[in-house]
Amino acid sequence: MAKVAIIGAGLMGTAMCWPLSDNGHQVRLVGTHLDAEAIASCKALRRHPRLGRVLPDHVEPYSVDEVGQALQDVELVVSGVNSHGVHWMGGLLARWLPPGVMVLAVTKGLEAGAGGKLAILPDVLAGFLPEPARRKVPIAAIAGPCIAGELAGRRHSCVIFTSRDRSALPHLRDMLQTWYYHVALAADVVGVEACAALKNAFTLAVGMAEGLLERHGGRDEAGAGMFNPAAALFGESMVEMARLVELMGGDPLHVTGLAGAGDEFVTCVGGRTIRLGRLLGQGLNYVDAQREMAGETLESAAVVEQVARVLPVWEHEGLVAAEELPLMRMVCRVITQNAPVEIPFAHFMRDRL
Amino acid sequence: MAKVAIIGAGLMGTAMCWPLSDNGHQVRLVGTHLDAEAIASCKALRRHPRLGRVLPDHVEPYSVDEVGQALQDVELVVSGVNSHGVHWMGGLLARWLPPGVMVLAVTKGLEAGAGGKLAILPDVLAGFLPEPARRKVPIAAIAGPCIAGELAGRRHSCVIFTSRDRSALPHLRDMLQTWYYHVALAADVVGVEACAALKNAFTLAVGMAEGLLERHGGRDEAGAGMFNPAAALFGESMVEMARLVELMGGDPLHVTGLAGAGDEFVTCVGGRTIRLGRLLGQGLNYVDAQREMAGETLESAAVVEQVARVLPVWEHEGLVAAEELPLMRMVCRVITQNAPVEIPFAHFMRDRL
Repeated sequence: MAKVAIIGAGLMGTAMCWPLSDNGHQVRLVGTHLDAEAIASCKALRRHPRLGRVLPDHVEPYSVDEVGQALQDVELVVSGVNSHGVHWMGGLLARWLPPGVMVLAVTKGLEAGAGGKLAILPDVLAGFLPEPARRKVPIAAIAGPCIAGELAGRRHSCVIFTSRDRSALPHLRDMLQTWYYHVALAADVVGVEACAALKNAFTLAVGMAEGLLERHGGRDEAGAGMFNPAAALFGESMVEMARLVELMGGDPLHVTGLAGAGDEFVTCVGGRTIRLGRLLGQGLNYVDAQREMAGETLESAAVVEQVARVLPVWEHEGLVAAEELPLMRMVCRVITQNAPVEIPFAHFMRDRL
Repeated sequence: MAKVAIIGAGLMGTAMCWPLSDNGHQVRLVGTHLDAEAIASCKALRRHPRLGRVLPDHVEPYSVDEVGQALQDVELVVSGVNSHGVHWMGGLLARWLPPGVMVLAVTKGLEAGAGGKLAILPDVLAGFLPEPARRKVPIAAIAGPCIAGELAGRRHSCVIFTSRDRSALPHLRDMLQTWYYHVALAADVVGVEACAALKNAFTLAVGMAEGLLERHGGRDEAGAGMFNPAAALFGESMVEMARLVELMGGDPLHVTGLAGAGDEFVTCVGGRTIRLGRLLGQGLNYVDAQREMAGETLESAAVVEQVARVLPVWEHEGLVAAEELPLMRMVCRVITQNAPVEIPFAHFMRDRL
């Protein structure tokens, strides 16, 4: 049994306590400066307020200033911060990470760099580590459909662990897999992580259908909703996700499975991303929709912003044609140019004769 | 503007009146013996009771004994029967079909034949036509996410027309496409039609998650549902659908798009297939679940029964390994052997290292 530190006591970071504790590991749950209230509650009552659950047995809560202590003798660090916290996490790991420790990240996102480079977050994280450490620290990531509250409720959850250091993956699975937490391993970290991030951007688009329904006065006299448009958006998502994964150098295979279709399916069930899409579909521009959702982390918009930065570069370099990715381009205009939602259904129609 | 007959006045057959009528065609809606009540209402009040809508302007209702008259001078016959009606429709077309008329089928299904052959319904329909007519009658089919009530409500709907006679497809699109009914053309009729049918079988599996939730006493104290399991089932669906399409000789490309992911997404929103899955997930065996849904056409179970007939043949011939398609095999046992629902989550986990 190992000592494990989870950094970030948001919903997903905290939910990782369950499989780890159920496997007998000693878990140290470290809140960031955003989690002060949650950690205070965990320390006083062993209860995580947003998750609405009592922590399992083998978990000890730590506040952010106790991070040095929490990282002592650990075998694994789980990075549970959101995408805005990845640079902070990189700095923290660079400073504190003991040699030989593994990192497993739940964060989803992409980061646009110079020259049209769209980096996955495990690579961003690795970039913070000094060169000798970088080669010794396996950085892995988790993808696949996993609502935190259901993982903590020990519902069957099927996920993918991926890493550039594939030799680390079987041991990570041994540490985390339980009767309800099923883990598949994948070497194609770009393909898997691209799906994990892009599904948020595309779920935003699917959510727009619900907003359009409300904008058109709700269900009609015979009860018709907007599921046909939503499903067209979902289907087009899969096509464009596969193309984007390919452009990033990953294998589109993962789109047709847990990391792509499965994760987008569960994200469409509800939550912040669907809510933001609905507000935009209703007719709010992005600035107003953001105001409406004040205080919420909008991972989906963050991904769109990064894609919007590389698309013109890719197009200029002839990697992607102007008529490709019509849905993603529309979403980019909505998020980065405050444009209205205008779903280009006709452009989703591609003959294959 | 053409004369068009729709045979079958169920939900989907009737909904096809809208794009046809909006394009100015003269539409003859012919009820089968199952649609006597609907056609009586259409004749008396111009209202289709199950669809809950008044028929559009250019539509005339016909009863089944008026079919000869309805088929006079038509350019196109839309087959709107369900999969159990395909043989009846084949006989009818063989007897009545005027030379040179096109057929467009909305029916989804598969039919197992000798030697492990799993036929798509347009081919089954074609098999009924005498040889000279068969070569002159283009039989096309529609796939993609399209709830009938939403099509009739003129919601944006994105579909695929497919046919072995690809030269007929552009004209069919010209006849049916409107500002809200978007049509893409595909030559791979096996790939498209396999997705259209298989999505029903797999949606049945996704529905089981909801039933399992109810069986386990509903949401837990922190509100956890069963969306992680449902999403794992959806993701596995895509993987197995791609494999089945390949085994049938189609292109798995269509799984990642409207015909596969898009149509399964909309089918998961609700309806008979999800309801049957839920009953099975709750713990009813198939015989009892059927009784519970007495009178409903269970297209999903019909597809499963056909797949269950060919799988052993494929396995015997070494085309498919015993450990492949774990979800479809479980669904086959539930439907054809009255077995209990036991979702093999661990078997969905495939390492790709």
